[in-house]
Amino acid sequence: MKFAEPQTLKKISSLINAKYVGDDNFQIEGINEIHRVKKGEIVFVDHPKYYDKALQSAASVVLINKKIACSPEKALIISDDPFRDFNLINAHFRKFEPQKEMISPDVLIGENTIIQPNVYIGKQVKIGSNCIIFSNVTLQDYTEIGDNVIIQSGTVIGGDGFYYKNRGTHYDRLKSVGNVKIEDNVEIGSNCTVDRGVTSTTTIGEGSKLDNLIQVGHDTVIGKKCLIASQVGIAGCCNIKDEVVIWGQVGIASSLTIGNKAVILAQSGVSKNLENKKTYFGSPADESKKVMKELAIIKRLAHKK
Amino acid sequence: MKFAEPQTLKKISSLINAKYVGDDNFQIEGINEIHRVKKGEIVFVDHPKYYDKALQSAASVVLINKKIACSPEKALIISDDPFRDFNLINAHFRKFEPQKEMISPDVLIGENTIIQPNVYIGKQVKIGSNCIIFSNVTLQDYTEIGDNVIIQSGTVIGGDGFYYKNRGTHYDRLKSVGNVKIEDNVEIGSNCTVDRGVTSTTTIGEGSKLDNLIQVGHDTVIGKKCLIASQVGIAGCCNIKDEVVIWGQVGIASSLTIGNKAVILAQSGVSKNLENKKTYFGSPADESKKVMKELAIIKRLAHKK
Amino acid sequence: MKFAEPQTLKKISSLINAKYVGDDNFQIEGINEIHRVKKGEIVFVDHPKYYDKALQSAASVVLINKKIACSPEKALIISDDPFRDFNLINAHFRKFEPQKEMISPDVLIGENTIIQPNVYIGKQVKIGSNCIIFSNVTLQDYTEIGDNVIIQSGTVIGGDGFYYKNRGTHYDRLKSVGNVKIEDNVEIGSNCTVDRGVTSTTTIGEGSKLDNLIQVGHDTVIGKKCLIASQVGIAGCCNIKDEVVIWGQVGIASSLTIGNKAVILAQSGVSKNLENKKTYFGSPADESKKVMKELAIIKRLAHKK
Repeated sequence: MKFAEPQTLKKISSLINAKYVGDDNFQIEGINEIHRVKKGEIVFVDHPKYYDKALQSAASVVLINKKIACSPEKALIISDDPFRDFNLINAHFRKFEPQKEMISPDVLIGENTIIQPNVYIGKQVKIGSNCIIFSNVTLQDYTEIGDNVIIQSGTVIGGDGFYYKNRGTHYDRLKSVGNVKIEDNVEIGSNCTVDRGVTSTTTIGEGSKLDNLIQVGHDTVIGKKCLIASQVGIAGCCNIKDEVVIWGQVGIASSLTIGNKAVILAQSGVSKNLENKKTYFGSPADESKKVMKELAIIKRLAHKK
Repeated sequence: MKFAEPQTLKKISSLINAKYVGDDNFQIEGINEIHRVKKGEIVFVDHPKYYDKALQSAASVVLINKKIACSPEKALIISDDPFRDFNLINAHFRKFEPQKEMISPDVLIGENTIIQPNVYIGKQVKIGSNCIIFSNVTLQDYTEIGDNVIIQSGTVIGGDGFYYKNRGTHYDRLKSVGNVKIEDNVEIGSNCTVDRGVTSTTTIGEGSKLDNLIQVGHDTVIGKKCLIASQVGIAGCCNIKDEVVIWGQVGIASSLTIGNKAVILAQSGVSKNLENKKTYFGSPADESKKVMKELAIIKRLAHKK
Repeated sequence: MKFAEPQTLKKISSLINAKYVGDDNFQIEGINEIHRVKKGEIVFVDHPKYYDKALQSAASVVLINKKIACSPEKALIISDDPFRDFNLINAHFRKFEPQKEMISPDVLIGENTIIQPNVYIGKQVKIGSNCIIFSNVTLQDYTEIGDNVIIQSGTVIGGDGFYYKNRGTHYDRLKSVGNVKIEDNVEIGSNCTVDRGVTSTTTIGEGSKLDNLIQVGHDTVIGKKCLIASQVGIAGCCNIKDEVVIWGQVGIASSLTIGNKAVILAQSGVSKNLENKKTYFGSPADESKKVMKELAIIKRLAHKK
């Protein structure tokens, strides 16, 4: 999430009553998760196992639970609970506020776009031209939709991500303040769920087509001209490259990369990165020609005379 | 889709600026896909591989991208892009129009039928007697519902089918102008999606019962007294015969036939036609007694002392 | 379901024109299914195979299709069709009535709870404090929601259970008159379906977190601090104990018990009870370390040089 205007290190630290390492006026442009963080942004880390990853990321500020050495180009904010304070900073800049209207008055809607009855549209949503948004759709805050987009009934764009920290006694939610971006010529079926990024943008790339009852997790980026069949579930933080074809009821675990033009056959369960242009099958998924050989050998063993 | 009144070959051809082979006044009653086309109707074909299938179908008119020899009982319409022109003809007879009202004023509703709050009903929908349509349901244009039907909250009846042509640079949608027919005594759970036929009718047969979160693809015909558990996905153009039982999370690929009284065990993935009265399991699904033997042999091999 | 006030054996029997065995004034406090029945309540049984189970249950009254010997502490109601008469008694005490308002006027809502636009709330629903109910949610009659609960858009709480009796010529629905209870600090994603109990209470325990597109069947009880990922399907009458973790697209068959802290890996299909603290995988699911060994042996056999 980019701040509306840059903030100083001093100001952000004072929001959460934290000490910091760096110049008072160190400029901060936004806040983000480790998967998507860019220069100028804050990232958080609360486990020594991931300290290096955070320190070596593109982040300019690391919100961390220990004062450690770091490059002079980066600043640190020292917190006894970076997870809690990440939520506090996010809530400060994007507080959830109840909405009375079915359609927020600040929505921007392009020419020839049709909004059918009973669509809920949250604040600061942008919708391009020549779109059709069918009845009973929900578009949560900050959703961005391009031109020539079709979203069928009952689909929820921009629900909160499923991201929790186990506190032992209970789970704490990492609150979602990111958004969803749906590029031009995308079509999405009925009763799908596309979660917003926690701090970044869940994206469905230009010309991709999604069938019904599909789950797309927070911060996942789907490339251009993908074809995704019904009841597919894609977890959070995945990178689905361009022209990928995913058949029905496939599941893809979080933070995986699926190469360009990969094809994933129905009901496969993907638990590792997949290469460009290959066809996969099975749960756990592997190259389909290998899996077919495995299925054949089992049948031979079981049914031999 | 049947036209409101018969059309001549000359008139239909002029709509799309196409040449034709046949009598100017050759009567055309409607338009349909190859899976469902009937006498008097137009079908389209744009790949030489399927020319014979189209020419030998029940269709009376073939919208085709090459002038070829055909039976004197059939007419041809010659188009450089039959897919595009099929869409144009469909859109001419059933243009999608935005609707302002939550319930279209032309809906026909039978006696003692209850429509709970916040149901969207499109144009020319018919609902029989003694039905309950729960809140947040969507019934798209032309849906037909019999008597004693229950549809639970959030279910979408008549969403557009998932049917695209790969143009290389992008996907083109085959626009849906068909409908959904739900026969008497059918009950459908919450948050299901039943897509309308592309030009024909997706049907759920008398007395069938569907649980929650089920996908039924375009033009699929489900028979009478079927029982379908939660999260089942049935692709487009399937024929599910009578008294079929399908357990949870089963997936069925497109254009398959499932025989009468077949039973498909949970999570199976069906990739071929299934016979009457047999029980199936696995992904890809096979007769369950065979699959059980395969599972046993694997366990024996893996865990032998 | 508890009756608003206790009823006599004579009165209940007269409702359905049935004979009975027991004192006219035998007190009856409610009615329930065999899975959940308690002392003071009626249970029904219509197959000799289950007579003993019903007679030995905690039920005080057995609605049965044959006069048989039973303990003097129990009463019998003799019916030629206990299934039909169970429905009749239920309908007498909890008749479904159409609702005109989007939010029933008798709903109780706690402090600081936010109800976003376009939420449907049925009669006698209670919602605690500090909750957020997002747009397009449906809360059916008698739903109880604790404090600090979040329910995201499109989710349906309290749909009718999927429970039918095969009459040969058709299926008869066991009508749902139970409810759903969602305890404190539960969070539920978008487009989920949580069915009400048939006569009892479907429960989601304190602090449990559910992702999107999840199915929870009638009368299932989910314990405290469970984590359930997207597209999981849990059938009816299950007992999911505390701190269970269920990954994406898992299916769990009806009436099973999942032990405390069990972990079920993605896409598993659970067909038997699972033990505490173990990790499971596969369809049908088994201990994951066993299944991994099986997968390894298949790969070795298929791909050996």
